[in-house]
Amino acid sequence: MAMHQLVEYTEASAEVRAVYDDIMATRKTDWINNFWKALANDPVTLRRTWESIKQIMAPGALDPLIKEMIYIAVSVTNQCPYCIASHTASARNKGMTDAMFHELMAVVGMANETNRLASGYQVEIDEQFKQ
Amino acid sequence: MAMHQLVEYTEASAEVRAVYDDIMATRKTDWINNFWKALANDPVTLRRTWESIKQIMAPGALDPLIKEMIYIAVSVTNQCPYCIASHTASARNKGMTDAMFHELMAVVGMANETNRLASGYQVEIDEQFKQ
Amino acid sequence: MAMHQLVEYTEASAEVRAVYDDIMATRKTDWINNFWKALANDPVTLRRTWESIKQIMAPGALDPLIKEMIYIAVSVTNQCPYCIASHTASARNKGMTDAMFHELMAVVGMANETNRLASGYQVEIDEQFKQ
Amino acid sequence: MAMHQLVEYTEASAEVRAVYDDIMATRKTDWINNFWKALANDPVTLRRTWESIKQIMAPGALDPLIKEMIYIAVSVTNQCPYCIASHTASARNKGMTDAMFHELMAVVGMANETNRLASGYQVEIDEQFKQ
Amino acid sequence: MAMHQLVEYTEASAEVRAVYDDIMATRKTDWINNFWKALANDPVTLRRTWESIKQIMAPGALDPLIKEMIYIAVSVTNQCPYCIASHTASARNKGMTDAMFHELMAVVGMANETNRLASGYQVEIDEQFKQ
Amino acid sequence: MAMHQLVEYTEASAEVRAVYDDIMATRKTDWINNFWKALANDPVTLRRTWESIKQIMAPGALDPLIKEMIYIAVSVTNQCPYCIASHTASARNKGMTDAMFHELMAVVGMANETNRLASGYQVEIDEQFKQ
Repeated sequence: MAMHQLVEYTEASAEVRAVYDDIMATRKTDWINNFWKALANDPVTLRRTWESIKQIMAPGALDPLIKEMIYIAVSVTNQCPYCIASHTASARNKGMTDAMFHELMAVVGMANETNRLASGYQVEIDEQFKQ
Repeated sequence: MAMHQLVEYTEASAEVRAVYDDIMATRKTDWINNFWKALANDPVTLRRTWESIKQIMAPGALDPLIKEMIYIAVSVTNQCPYCIASHTASARNKGMTDAMFHELMAVVGMANETNRLASGYQVEIDEQFKQ
Repeated sequence: MAMHQLVEYTEASAEVRAVYDDIMATRKTDWINNFWKALANDPVTLRRTWESIKQIMAPGALDPLIKEMIYIAVSVTNQCPYCIASHTASARNKGMTDAMFHELMAVVGMANETNRLASGYQVEIDEQFKQ
Repeated sequence: MAMHQLVEYTEASAEVRAVYDDIMATRKTDWINNFWKALANDPVTLRRTWESIKQIMAPGALDPLIKEMIYIAVSVTNQCPYCIASHTASARNKGMTDAMFHELMAVVGMANETNRLASGYQVEIDEQFKQ
Repeated sequence: MAMHQLVEYTEASAEVRAVYDDIMATRKTDWINNFWKALANDPVTLRRTWESIKQIMAPGALDPLIKEMIYIAVSVTNQCPYCIASHTASARNKGMTDAMFHELMAVVGMANETNRLASGYQVEIDEQFKQ
Repeated sequence: MAMHQLVEYTEASAEVRAVYDDIMATRKTDWINNFWKALANDPVTLRRTWESIKQIMAPGALDPLIKEMIYIAVSVTNQCPYCIASHTASARNKGMTDAMFHELMAVVGMANETNRLASGYQVEIDEQFKQ
């Protein structure tokens, strides 16, 4: 059901190829996943999105595996099947164990539950949390 | 705008006090935040929710600070003001630095963006992500 | 923080008053809540929305109290503070007890949790559920 | 995986056919898409939903193509695959170019990102925005 | 596209089998649906989730069919395909008629609409709803 | 309830001031709203977010007012109070009339409704929408 043509490397413009090359070099992989091939229909968004992700997902105060797990937490909360599949695979590649995945899911599930209990009971924010 | 009475320790039943005592002992704190005081209107849900959170947020394959940051990621995605305020405070108590918080927010923002690009472009899941 | 003027009965057009009158008559009440006063800035949407709600919330295969509780379930899931406050008040008026509210919240919380477990674990739909 | 029978024109009641006829006449098309065939199981909702959409999507202060793009923005944010597919097709029929679609996606993605930055940083509304 | 192995009864540990047995006994059925088979990869979450659902969905102030319909309302709002399919089937088994399902959908749809009208018009909560 | 200090121009670093100057020059305004003052705690995210928004919201295949209305559509769907207030103000500044706002809200509300009808009825995507 791809409504948008996937832009393969061999048929890509030099501009798109430059991004693909950087993705593969940065990720130390030899293929490009469909997300980027779809975005390549709009080279401006392809480049901006890749540059942002490259900056955000790099090692920093949080390590890349933790960042992938946070990405999964958001994707699961939003119910985005593509994103769940791709970031779960990425996290596995970066060393996420089964035990880590199970705990991640448990926290995500629980947070989605208590978010609704807090709003349903119309709980006011404690003064202690305001400073 | 509290629609539901907050159950204070001094007026709580023994059943509710037992949960409050366990919360304070487990968290090494001497006060109970409004979330629990609101849930205490329903002692069954108070106990079940606390027991679940206590189990889920304990140290395991992921450390408690990472779990708090995942909790924030979900709460921000769902736009739950109470949960954002309370779990940001908890994460700070567990050692989240400014730099960690900034990176957490950057990842959460980006994930919410690319979740929509993936669905808007109707991207099919790559075979490589299915196994 | 009302960005939109609330249209009071005394200053309303005949068209708007007719809707207000029908709301008060249908609900057996003598005041109009802010939601309708805000919508009254757009009389077309005011009328269409009221006519739809009047039709949908009337007694039928489900009784009006059950419908109010379903309204709360949606509003809590979406984290809409106005809607939670107003429909909780309506449900109380229609006979929702504390015990019913507590069970409603427990189900809403749990459903939000298992929704994420189902998507996070990428669970395929059983054949038995397809027919 | 259709849990609900699709009501085809040839087997539809006169009541349902009248709505189908109006849909096809209004949209200048000769077929009915699955959304309406599913809703036709409930003729009351079929009629109310169609009458509302017909009123809302008609030319007015905003032109119909802009309205279709707003529909896509909501559907992508909610991650509704059927709605994304159907409204993207409708917008194409009304003249949405590739360039327009790409910009639409960029805005939708960015808005979903900054929505979370605003809530995550607990930003208070500026006085200037309140009047 | 199952990323996670489904744990079948014959290959399950005693710990998992005990939960499966309780699910089948409680629900008076002779099979286990994929949701539980996926969760069984994490026996701790399997047990906690099942115990919570068993407690929450039992008859109480609300009857089990009403609870199933509330579950559907949340699942539809969150756009969780697995959950919609499974809880619609469960509700049918508990006696949900076509007429009840149609009214449930009408309320869920309308609530999702008015939730956005309330927030888009930035409607302030009426004093009457605060106590 | 600002958990994060707002960085005022007079106390900002040269790096942050450069972004503030560009925001004010681009928007032809003489003040900075709280969103940017909060993000300024993380100059890297401040710059990246501003550069992205500047690029995305510029005139192109869609005019800036349409883009602001799409931003509102997303913000209302996500129930983000800050974003609704700020982008409604921006759209007003760019020429959004009352009539345009009312139609925008009507479309956003309806789309949120039919998104749930489509998923609740488990409607399959028509072949015609796949190509």
